[in-house]
Amino acid sequence: MIKDEIVSILKSVLGNGKEFIPLHEPVFNGNEWNYVKECLDTTFVSSVGKFVDRFEKDLAEFTGAKHAVAVVNGTAALQIALKLAGVEENDEVFIPSLTFIATANSVSYLKAHPHFIENEEKTLGVSPTSLREYLNSIAEVRSGQCFNKKTGNRISAIVPMHTFGHPVAMDELLAVANDFHFKVVEDAAESLGSYYFGKHTGTLGLLGTLSFNGNKTITTGGGGAILTNNKELAILAKHITTTAKIPHPWEYTHDVIGYNYRLPNLNAALGCAQLEKLPELLESKRKLFHLYENAFSTMAEVKIQKEPNGCKSNYWLQTLVLKPSLVGERDNILSATNSAGIMTRPAWTLLHKLKPYSHCSKMNLPVSESLEMRLINIPSSSNLIHA
Amino acid sequence: MIKDEIVSILKSVLGNGKEFIPLHEPVFNGNEWNYVKECLDTTFVSSVGKFVDRFEKDLAEFTGAKHAVAVVNGTAALQIALKLAGVEENDEVFIPSLTFIATANSVSYLKAHPHFIENEEKTLGVSPTSLREYLNSIAEVRSGQCFNKKTGNRISAIVPMHTFGHPVAMDELLAVANDFHFKVVEDAAESLGSYYFGKHTGTLGLLGTLSFNGNKTITTGGGGAILTNNKELAILAKHITTTAKIPHPWEYTHDVIGYNYRLPNLNAALGCAQLEKLPELLESKRKLFHLYENAFSTMAEVKIQKEPNGCKSNYWLQTLVLKPSLVGERDNILSATNSAGIMTRPAWTLLHKLKPYSHCSKMNLPVSESLEMRLINIPSSSNLIHA
Repeated sequence: MIKDEIVSILKSVLGNGKEFIPLHEPVFNGNEWNYVKECLDTTFVSSVGKFVDRFEKDLAEFTGAKHAVAVVNGTAALQIALKLAGVEENDEVFIPSLTFIATANSVSYLKAHPHFIENEEKTLGVSPTSLREYLNSIAEVRSGQCFNKKTGNRISAIVPMHTFGHPVAMDELLAVANDFHFKVVEDAAESLGSYYFGKHTGTLGLLGTLSFNGNKTITTGGGGAILTNNKELAILAKHITTTAKIPHPWEYTHDVIGYNYRLPNLNAALGCAQLEKLPELLESKRKLFHLYENAFSTMAEVKIQKEPNGCKSNYWLQTLVLKPSLVGERDNILSATNSAGIMTRPAWTLLHKLKPYSHCSKMNLPVSESLEMRLINIPSSSNLIHA
Repeated sequence: MIKDEIVSILKSVLGNGKEFIPLHEPVFNGNEWNYVKECLDTTFVSSVGKFVDRFEKDLAEFTGAKHAVAVVNGTAALQIALKLAGVEENDEVFIPSLTFIATANSVSYLKAHPHFIENEEKTLGVSPTSLREYLNSIAEVRSGQCFNKKTGNRISAIVPMHTFGHPVAMDELLAVANDFHFKVVEDAAESLGSYYFGKHTGTLGLLGTLSFNGNKTITTGGGGAILTNNKELAILAKHITTTAKIPHPWEYTHDVIGYNYRLPNLNAALGCAQLEKLPELLESKRKLFHLYENAFSTMAEVKIQKEPNGCKSNYWLQTLVLKPSLVGERDNILSATNSAGIMTRPAWTLLHKLKPYSHCSKMNLPVSESLEMRLINIPSSSNLIHA
């Protein structure tokens, strides 16, 4: 039985002894406690404190982005990045259907409409080829802006999401965006430490966003960041995520409707410590990938998703890809592995199938539909390699 | 000179030795370390962990609310509370002009319009008497809903904000809301530990909200909570602040557009420890009020704001109220005190004077206009009493 074979291979990699192996858990073996304790000892846990500034500086340095703005979570980061990219009410924004619902929600918060586009197998991310073909049929460019001929709405941006840490084919995608005049905002929530031909994900579009939720490669408890090389946008991002208050020793003046999206210093302290360990964590995750790759090489029916050519993936979540003939087996495999104490999960339910987004515009999505039934995430914590 | 006299009195209460006395700083002298360290040691810093549940239970117990839902900050709490109270796009929501901009922003996020109403001197909060008179002139009730006769918009809610911790005249306000058929959502961001005739602020309306920002009586770094006695609303609040995911061991199904507004476990841990010390903190703040009251009793030109009759205020921010004749002295007093290393600040710039809200509907606001120029917050930290 396929499911039993998978359980057996997973056990061979992960060891037999543990009662339960989570999908992904954080590892705190650096300066986490020192920095967090410093926050408590100085009482600088909230909006004032050095760790937020340092975390932003460290993030910019690590990713090579000129600017990083720390915020309260990845969803907030994407909402603000889209707003700064010029997304307005009733615009359409291209996003993959195969993503976490936060990608679509960020669009909705701006009263814009997600427009679902197709993914491709080699990256698990959006397909520039399918998108160009689709645009040739449904879009027109007028006065330097892209419009959906069917709905009449402006298409103002695209959000490539680097699925499970594997970079999207960005060069081709940027070319499509350039030809059709919409902005690129990368959802790099899952891809801290992933590179596309040497450039860190989230730094290739106009803006990019990160997440430091508890299930991510590094965590701040809850947190996110906006990346950009554009200084003006970075200044605006900081301003509107901190209630748009005009600096003054005591006066409260705010020039636009801002957001209370700053990251607390306490959470940033955790982030600074985690970021110091990131290279180590990434190395462990890469080693785990090779162990899985080797172990599953005996099975013709499944493969482990490998980083795309020219890219370096962070292997955030290791992913089994079932052969198309095994579509019907997915839920059996999920049941068997979870029953065996090895936490696994499928990709997300495609967003266009969910009630709040079932009415949105979309391409034909045969690849996404197929991937939905064939992807299974398996334990991916960076501490598994020391097991 | 008035300003010199005030500096001198403040120094007599606060001591002469310190270089700088902040307006409000947190105090961590309980289990803060223990609980935060437990989060790090168990790696439960994010969405999973016992402290969020405990913090909600402890908040409900302390306030007497049947339900408390912890969220990422007070602004998010108010946005969701208003949404759950039924506020929809293009509705009008009554809020005081004398409040922090977050109160208005929460309304704006729902694409509803703030409608500014008058405050009164005795509570520093909204005036039920002025409001009733105003409603008799501009409002009409049709089919059990309230409408603004001038704009045609529905008026769906009012947000009384308990200024600096002093409770609004809630009985009179609830009567107006009842007569004119709109919902009451209390902004109790500043009033944890404040009671209106024995009932905790935030528990008298349909919903209420709290803030645990770093400058508040207790802090979680950044955090907030929604209070309600309505079980159905509490369940909905939890659901939509946690991405509206339907519980399942592995499937990702979301039934509405939710928000990523959960409070991380790390921040909740800090909150649990802080809440244990709250009674002590409140006692210290009350003692500080009495010291100030006594010290300023020699000055005829200023008084210290005292809790309204029948109420128990938390004295979050101690507040000097200048006599109307001293309106022109405010900025001189602010300069002199801040220059002397004693941090003070005025109330907020009235919201209807700020660019993003200058177009909104409003009552005549003579009391608010006068209070804006006569209120000065003075150092209020609960550790000042041990100085």
